[in-house]
Amino acid sequence: MFDFTLDGTQDTARAGTLVLPHGTVQTPCFMPVGTRGAVRGLHPEEVRRAGAQIILGNTYHLHLRPGEDVVAALGGLHRFTTWDKPMLTDSGGFQVFSLTALRKLDEDGVEFASHIDGSLRRLTPEKAMAIQWDLGADVAMAFDHLPPGQSTHDVARDAMDRTLRWLERSRHRHEELAAGTPGRQTLWPIVQGGSWPDLRRDSLAGLLASGDWTGVAIGGLSVGESKAVMYGVLEELEPALPRDRPRYLMGVGFPEDIVEGIARGVDLFDCVAATRNGRHGSAWTADGRVNVRGVALRLEDAPLDAGCDCEACARFSRGYIRHLFFAEEHLGPRLVSIHNLRFLIRLADEARKHVLDGTFAAWASEWRRRYFARGTTA
Amino acid sequence: MFDFTLDGTQDTARAGTLVLPHGTVQTPCFMPVGTRGAVRGLHPEEVRRAGAQIILGNTYHLHLRPGEDVVAALGGLHRFTTWDKPMLTDSGGFQVFSLTALRKLDEDGVEFASHIDGSLRRLTPEKAMAIQWDLGADVAMAFDHLPPGQSTHDVARDAMDRTLRWLERSRHRHEELAAGTPGRQTLWPIVQGGSWPDLRRDSLAGLLASGDWTGVAIGGLSVGESKAVMYGVLEELEPALPRDRPRYLMGVGFPEDIVEGIARGVDLFDCVAATRNGRHGSAWTADGRVNVRGVALRLEDAPLDAGCDCEACARFSRGYIRHLFFAEEHLGPRLVSIHNLRFLIRLADEARKHVLDGTFAAWASEWRRRYFARGTTA
Repeated sequence: MFDFTLDGTQDTARAGTLVLPHGTVQTPCFMPVGTRGAVRGLHPEEVRRAGAQIILGNTYHLHLRPGEDVVAALGGLHRFTTWDKPMLTDSGGFQVFSLTALRKLDEDGVEFASHIDGSLRRLTPEKAMAIQWDLGADVAMAFDHLPPGQSTHDVARDAMDRTLRWLERSRHRHEELAAGTPGRQTLWPIVQGGSWPDLRRDSLAGLLASGDWTGVAIGGLSVGESKAVMYGVLEELEPALPRDRPRYLMGVGFPEDIVEGIARGVDLFDCVAATRNGRHGSAWTADGRVNVRGVALRLEDAPLDAGCDCEACARFSRGYIRHLFFAEEHLGPRLVSIHNLRFLIRLADEARKHVLDGTFAAWASEWRRRYFARGTTA
Repeated sequence: MFDFTLDGTQDTARAGTLVLPHGTVQTPCFMPVGTRGAVRGLHPEEVRRAGAQIILGNTYHLHLRPGEDVVAALGGLHRFTTWDKPMLTDSGGFQVFSLTALRKLDEDGVEFASHIDGSLRRLTPEKAMAIQWDLGADVAMAFDHLPPGQSTHDVARDAMDRTLRWLERSRHRHEELAAGTPGRQTLWPIVQGGSWPDLRRDSLAGLLASGDWTGVAIGGLSVGESKAVMYGVLEELEPALPRDRPRYLMGVGFPEDIVEGIARGVDLFDCVAATRNGRHGSAWTADGRVNVRGVALRLEDAPLDAGCDCEACARFSRGYIRHLFFAEEHLGPRLVSIHNLRFLIRLADEARKHVLDGTFAAWASEWRRRYFARGTTA
């Protein structure tokens, strides 16, 4: 259980297979985000039919509502949500540091005000492990300290060092919880260090020295720095990352990030942009972004993306989807969300095929040329 | 085409079969409302899987947005929405008289301000026919004058008389439009007359004298009068309604209305309550209404309605659906809307079976007893 096999590589790009309690994941792979126990706006069958192999749950959101006690009483997150494939939960660290208004940080943990009712709550490494154990995803994440985007070296070092100390406590508590059922859930550590290459290297070295992890995550990116900085951090880290473990780039997943991340050795991605953009009427296609409210779509009988096999493109016209947005019919956001999920999932699938047949670099180059030909930025 | 066959009767309750260009409808039947080119919040496949045989479209809403020209250019309402079964459009009369803020009424038609942008628009019998022809539903409705609920006898008579005069113009224009393709769309007249039995009888006699209609609709009910008054109007009309034509009770469709309407000889119903209540978390069950936000559901692993075969009840727990409402996940309203649609469609199906085997009266009596046992009112 939790084994990862490399099926092929081309330069630093990789194709692998990850075995988890609820199934097997072929990488590279995009993971849809089920923030509050559902991928926003969608039915689990729609997510499955879009090709998702694994989805995320959010510890922070599920802890606040409905509470891990409710999820556990109703059979755990898989049974509760009826998603029976692999699942990963984040630790709540990202949300606590980026979403909540008030907080007190000390060595023990973080105190924060719930964004729902303002009630004071506390998360510690131990508590984050207990919540994730109750949720019961295949993969749990260590509780990390996320410094603000573009932090100074001192601030980023402090957060990175604390993340390493919290990792020890996360691991200790997770081992206690998993003692009776070691094949139920694994724990992955998170590389921090902001945009500072030396801190990123220290963070990775520190966590690798502290255990034989079944996977490694890279956190704290896509938080305000430029894409060039993000790609640079990945390039710095890549040679030092274990080859035989899956690498998960947290919270990153615009189309170009998937391609550039895979080129730099990343195996797993997650991001809310697919459903958020879908909700707001922005559809990704091989030729860049389409605003579905655009007047040009008014009389268009064609699908959103002629090259797409998603259930929105198989059935509905651009003109109808445009109408749904103006009519404030939820079917509109839903169809574009499904399309965007399928777009990212297909993108990672295609990258995998090209890694396996040794054509990844040429494919990525052609993909970039076409995607950005109209000057679109996502 | 447009034939109606009576398959069986018990007292005044009826079971029939209606043949329309896009398929056959077994009655009694509840028709989901696709106000703006979609049944609110749902995918056409969900509506089909809930058992819908025919759905409605709204002429007023579709005329304003996206416009019948757009619908026609994209292949008509069936192709535009991808609903390939029978469809009926109302004439816009109800919305113009009940939704719009400003209006000028004269013998020619109605001038009103769009509820979207305030622009002044005009509907006449001829225009309502032209729009409905462009939309292309199987059944179009005559343009009627809907008086305010609980109108005086004078006001109700005036509106009823005008509705008869407009019916002549509606028919004339519809005959012109349909001349080349008579099997494409039929036109049904609407009985008006408020809560006044004599006006209702005059209205029905007037419209029956003016043509050999393929169906008859009863409008202007469920607009503020008590249910007893509505049922009384149906009882007054029933003996004078043609036995060999379908009877459509417009805009009525709470569960008890379906049962009482069928008992009084109605064949077709439509109502937005199924999806509106679903959206707001109110689920219908054989034992009355369930508020899905109720704290009692928090840890309930059971489905919304143990006796239901809908796709929400087949898969999801009450506890999860409750969570979706609090998390403001659209999947919640969607699941309860699907459940409520299926509930009404099954209710009409069951009534049909009991009419055919001669047990309708006993079944209806037992249904009422159980549905109202907890003192629930929908």
